[in-house]
Amino acid sequence: MRQPQLSALFILACFFLMPFSAPGQLLGFSQESATAQKKLEAQFDAQLNAKNLDEWMKHMAAHPHHVGSPWGKQNAEFMAARFREWGFDTKIETFQVLFPTPKLRLLELLEPTSYRAGLEEPPVAGDAHSAQTDEMLPPYNCFSIDGDVTAELVFVNFGVPADYEELEKLGVDVKGKIVIARYYGSWRGIKPKVAAEKGAIGCIIYSDPREDGYFQGDVYPEGAFKNEYGVQRGSVLDMPLYPGDPLTPGYGAVEGAERLSREDAPTLTKIPVLPISYKDAQPLLAALSGQVAPPSWRGALPFTYHVGPGPAKVHLKLEFNWELKPAYNVIAKMEGSAYPDQWIIRGNHHDAWVHGANDPISGMVAVMEEARAVGELAKSGWRPKRTLVYCAWDAEEPALLGSTEWVEHHARELRQKAVVYINTDSNSRGFLDAGGSHTLEQFFNEVARDVKDPQTGMSVYERWRARELVEGRPEPKDFSLDALGSGSDYTPFIQHLGIASFSLGFGGEGRGGEYHTAHDTYEHYTRFKDPGFQYGITLAQVAGRLSLRLAEADVLPFEFGQFTETVSTYAEEVMKMAGQLREQTEKENRLIREGLYAAAADPTKTFVVPAPKPEVPYFNFAPLQNALSSLKKSAGAFEEVRKKASLNTEQQTALNQLLQTIEQQLTRNQGLPRRPWYRHHIYAPGFYTGYGVKTLPGVREAIEERKFTEAQEQIGILSGVLSGFAQQIDKGTAILQQARAVDSANGPE
Amino acid sequence: MRQPQLSALFILACFFLMPFSAPGQLLGFSQESATAQKKLEAQFDAQLNAKNLDEWMKHMAAHPHHVGSPWGKQNAEFMAARFREWGFDTKIETFQVLFPTPKLRLLELLEPTSYRAGLEEPPVAGDAHSAQTDEMLPPYNCFSIDGDVTAELVFVNFGVPADYEELEKLGVDVKGKIVIARYYGSWRGIKPKVAAEKGAIGCIIYSDPREDGYFQGDVYPEGAFKNEYGVQRGSVLDMPLYPGDPLTPGYGAVEGAERLSREDAPTLTKIPVLPISYKDAQPLLAALSGQVAPPSWRGALPFTYHVGPGPAKVHLKLEFNWELKPAYNVIAKMEGSAYPDQWIIRGNHHDAWVHGANDPISGMVAVMEEARAVGELAKSGWRPKRTLVYCAWDAEEPALLGSTEWVEHHARELRQKAVVYINTDSNSRGFLDAGGSHTLEQFFNEVARDVKDPQTGMSVYERWRARELVEGRPEPKDFSLDALGSGSDYTPFIQHLGIASFSLGFGGEGRGGEYHTAHDTYEHYTRFKDPGFQYGITLAQVAGRLSLRLAEADVLPFEFGQFTETVSTYAEEVMKMAGQLREQTEKENRLIREGLYAAAADPTKTFVVPAPKPEVPYFNFAPLQNALSSLKKSAGAFEEVRKKASLNTEQQTALNQLLQTIEQQLTRNQGLPRRPWYRHHIYAPGFYTGYGVKTLPGVREAIEERKFTEAQEQIGILSGVLSGFAQQIDKGTAILQQARAVDSANGPE
Repeated sequence: MRQPQLSALFILACFFLMPFSAPGQLLGFSQESATAQKKLEAQFDAQLNAKNLDEWMKHMAAHPHHVGSPWGKQNAEFMAARFREWGFDTKIETFQVLFPTPKLRLLELLEPTSYRAGLEEPPVAGDAHSAQTDEMLPPYNCFSIDGDVTAELVFVNFGVPADYEELEKLGVDVKGKIVIARYYGSWRGIKPKVAAEKGAIGCIIYSDPREDGYFQGDVYPEGAFKNEYGVQRGSVLDMPLYPGDPLTPGYGAVEGAERLSREDAPTLTKIPVLPISYKDAQPLLAALSGQVAPPSWRGALPFTYHVGPGPAKVHLKLEFNWELKPAYNVIAKMEGSAYPDQWIIRGNHHDAWVHGANDPISGMVAVMEEARAVGELAKSGWRPKRTLVYCAWDAEEPALLGSTEWVEHHARELRQKAVVYINTDSNSRGFLDAGGSHTLEQFFNEVARDVKDPQTGMSVYERWRARELVEGRPEPKDFSLDALGSGSDYTPFIQHLGIASFSLGFGGEGRGGEYHTAHDTYEHYTRFKDPGFQYGITLAQVAGRLSLRLAEADVLPFEFGQFTETVSTYAEEVMKMAGQLREQTEKENRLIREGLYAAAADPTKTFVVPAPKPEVPYFNFAPLQNALSSLKKSAGAFEEVRKKASLNTEQQTALNQLLQTIEQQLTRNQGLPRRPWYRHHIYAPGFYTGYGVKTLPGVREAIEERKFTEAQEQIGILSGVLSGFAQQIDKGTAILQQARAVDSANGPE
Repeated sequence: MRQPQLSALFILACFFLMPFSAPGQLLGFSQESATAQKKLEAQFDAQLNAKNLDEWMKHMAAHPHHVGSPWGKQNAEFMAARFREWGFDTKIETFQVLFPTPKLRLLELLEPTSYRAGLEEPPVAGDAHSAQTDEMLPPYNCFSIDGDVTAELVFVNFGVPADYEELEKLGVDVKGKIVIARYYGSWRGIKPKVAAEKGAIGCIIYSDPREDGYFQGDVYPEGAFKNEYGVQRGSVLDMPLYPGDPLTPGYGAVEGAERLSREDAPTLTKIPVLPISYKDAQPLLAALSGQVAPPSWRGALPFTYHVGPGPAKVHLKLEFNWELKPAYNVIAKMEGSAYPDQWIIRGNHHDAWVHGANDPISGMVAVMEEARAVGELAKSGWRPKRTLVYCAWDAEEPALLGSTEWVEHHARELRQKAVVYINTDSNSRGFLDAGGSHTLEQFFNEVARDVKDPQTGMSVYERWRARELVEGRPEPKDFSLDALGSGSDYTPFIQHLGIASFSLGFGGEGRGGEYHTAHDTYEHYTRFKDPGFQYGITLAQVAGRLSLRLAEADVLPFEFGQFTETVSTYAEEVMKMAGQLREQTEKENRLIREGLYAAAADPTKTFVVPAPKPEVPYFNFAPLQNALSSLKKSAGAFEEVRKKASLNTEQQTALNQLLQTIEQQLTRNQGLPRRPWYRHHIYAPGFYTGYGVKTLPGVREAIEERKFTEAQEQIGILSGVLSGFAQQIDKGTAILQQARAVDSANGPE
């Protein structure tokens, strides 16, 4: 073989790739492009100014700005004006969404004593915003149905299925009762959902000081935590079924769209539900007798927790204004110079429950600063190769309404054009916290290693790693992306359409109990969350790099080795879980059948021995294991050949087009059992956890819910999905091999 | 070989042993003796009457009866009269012991607000006994020194060494401060001991409602748990150094005995210490600021727990009457017909902090009913083969004074005559709970399988097993005896003299917060602890069988296989612990040296990176492993030959004499490092746990306390002790082999 002319090769391989980046290199960038990119990022960083974040938060969190409020509209218009100033093609896309607000809220204890719940958050000294009570929505759970119920009370701990199993053992049935559950332990919407499944007729949710009140730290205004009046508002829509407008499932809630009647909307609660403070919960809980609650159920209130039922008897009456309200999504585009039809989408919501300084304005102002900095770069002549889309979602709080309706409405276009969606929401001082598609984990790591933590000067990766080690976890190979469930606006992108997504923020040192209360104000944020907005800037640096690198990469930086490893871990977890469930079921059935439960129980207390459960069969996991084995080969082959391939423009375009939609191969149109809206087969929010992710959800939840026939079917379906994904990778490998063949013809390896 | 005449063999083998008992047989008994024994036990059971327990408790707990009180003396005399009526040779042995009582108790908060602690337990509605405040000792910690100190306050959680490591990380030093610790987490005496080691000048101990107040259940008088006024009294003598009279270490505190001056008594506290209620603790704790206490430190009071120091400043002033008081031990003997110099000792204390219905009268009345039933058997002509000694100890509460002085005073005789000591103390409804010498574990199991649980009708063993399985522990092979540490009157017997011991009781279903308060009354006991005294009778059945079988056995039922297995488990634990400490030290040192602790810490909070600790060397455990290997062979050989041996009277006597003192081979006169009073090398109370046992204490504590040279020395010493023990077993085997040789000469195996 002849010795090639290096210079000639360089000219030829103008799109030479080094996907595994050596020092100074970046995944998806040639050496040359990487150098340019680093320079661009330095220019971007130089633009970022914490004062802007401060000023915008002060403005946008100046008044309550829930869906349909004057200040919400003002904020949308304010942001649209800014995006326009910064050079973006900006519009406000409005959807008409169902947004119930309280008309009547009544909660009273009737027996054995009487108490009428205050249900209000009075102003707090030193926080002028907290005094704007006239502009606020009072505490409520959004999408509770109307109701007027009176019944004995039962304390159900967090109100998750395991708690009801415990209650059954204690001989307590919630049928016809009103339950009181404490916040945490699950997403709040699970609590009334399970309560209704168990026959309860009403649900109260309260904030125990154990979770985010005085047990955790000093309370507002002395400290950051929830005081006796604080109430967590929040949605209780059955989002694990589908998020977004309950009346327009699967399509955009535009003006004039066909709508379900409210009676037919399956995601509204089945029973009335109301959130209360611990000041209001205290007389109710203290009036319960019956058995003492199990140790792990007891909170931090100063009395003995009993489960009831009764003698506490309560009356709960709720009425709502069932109105359509406009949701204003601000969409700001900067068209790509090379690939205008490849969109990098960056979003955060702008609506809040009250002032929302932390949730969501702390994230929103970082997005704005990123956009402003990009605008500045553009003013100096630069243009992104791919289209950048900055989004400020409305109506996230009630149920991801703004983003979901937008995604549903633009589904066809997004399937073709959306490459990646990058989400943020609340942000505060501390450690990088990020979830996302594992096809982008390697790419994400390069960014996490390139951005400095403002408090220590080390990289945000290194600081995260220090905490991992201090908390006793093993030496990490890389920053591990969490799997995405739900809880913010990435949900429709990744779960419904299969668009590769990230969701990230900082936190862990800026704690508090202000979430969804009237105390999430500018005062609270700048005292306790991120004084000086240093982490707002750091967030802009991380998310800005993610956006800019995705916009500029020669070849989209997807990688399949870490994805395969991660999914293999999930598969091992599921197999282990099946084994444990089998063992645990056998053990429990033995305790029941041999009378051991009865023998160990205190005969002076009620203890109902549960019925034995069907034994857990052995599943055939071989199809999944074989699919993962193929996937590993495909991922390996792709990386192997990618390292050596030089692509011409046509090949690069073909590869980019293939990669752009590859995450969509992990979805199926049929979706998951009983909830077709959720199409991703690797990640989903749990049917009984709400926000919390269930990986390999079809298989995992079938086993957990003891649907054993379905579990075996889902193993087959998941295996098919993974095989299809591997085939798509193989197509990418074929493109790379073509390039390599050309390359080889021109010189030695 | 000739076919033997079975009948001839039977006559010859009149003392034939079946040590591993087949059905209907008992360890240490011939078939014939076992049958007689079972009959005797049925007669014993038939005597037991719950009404006696009720009546005696009502009488003995009618007034406060602490050391030196009129009712304490009355109780001793009452019991002595009863034992005499029942046919026992009874005397009251009196010792003169140091027993300080409060002269002045003052605790006040001086800054930032002022509060004077009430330090009283007012009468409780419905409990007439609680109104006898004039007769009570007010709440105090016995053997606190006098003191008058004023300083800033620091909250130290349980006040154990690990808590001070945590405080150091938080940058908090207790030097010159007064500490406030909560009860539990260690024996109370550890709290002022460690506080003084760390430089504190005063110590307050309070009862957090988390541990035995409203967090656990309804409070007295509605429920059994500690109300806001309840204070746990109790000794704070440095008992891990030596228990008993602090002025007469190692010898009896008889009238006229030489005594240390109080200044030279090493077991008194180094700083003043006072116990308080949570009503009195609340203003003090609430006045602390500084860092928020770590999550596991927080109790159930309704505020944020801070560690301080200050701004809370407190004044603690304590003065005591330092007087000698008479301790009345009631000693009742029934001489053995065959082996009068082999004593089976059965004991319980009779003194209380206040009324002591549960602690100790619930156990004391069971002892009395056992003795009464034995007396009834004796009236019908029966006599025990070995001497039965029933003891009612005085002055257990201040520091095991009565039993310790008696044991020290009679040490020479006890070393020769005492076979086994069987202790009880508090008793309530629930599950058998027993610790003891593992040389008697197999014997104990036969008893636990023969006594019925009064609530379920199954054996107390079976009910215990049911709970083991329900709580997720593995299928037990046998009832596992806990290792004995300290905390009741078995301590001088087993720890100082090496007399094989048991300590047992029932509990787990009769819970409450009355321990050492003015609420441990007849009213409380009969409502919440053991209504109807069913478990008092069951305790008498278990302890009565232990006594009677030991008194009647043909050969003492010691067995060494389970002992060897148990000690091997301890050795494995210690080896594992050494490995874990090594690994943990390396890990922690790495976090320190690589700056990871500093990197992960919140820079807005004080965090002092600790100094690296010396690395843990590898120890040579081979001597211990070899000793255990020999022990296993010796134990196996003994059992092997015992199964087949027939002993003549002389051989039986020789074997009994050997077995009677064999546990003493586990002691050394030099005792444990820095505390020669503790001589047993398998069991000891922990130097920094107080009551809690440390098995293989010489080795284990040296490693835990990072005295690595000493650890290696102690491995050698322990190995020597175990080898000596094995040699003693071999002597027993030789006796059995003699017998077997005779037997073999008379017929085939």
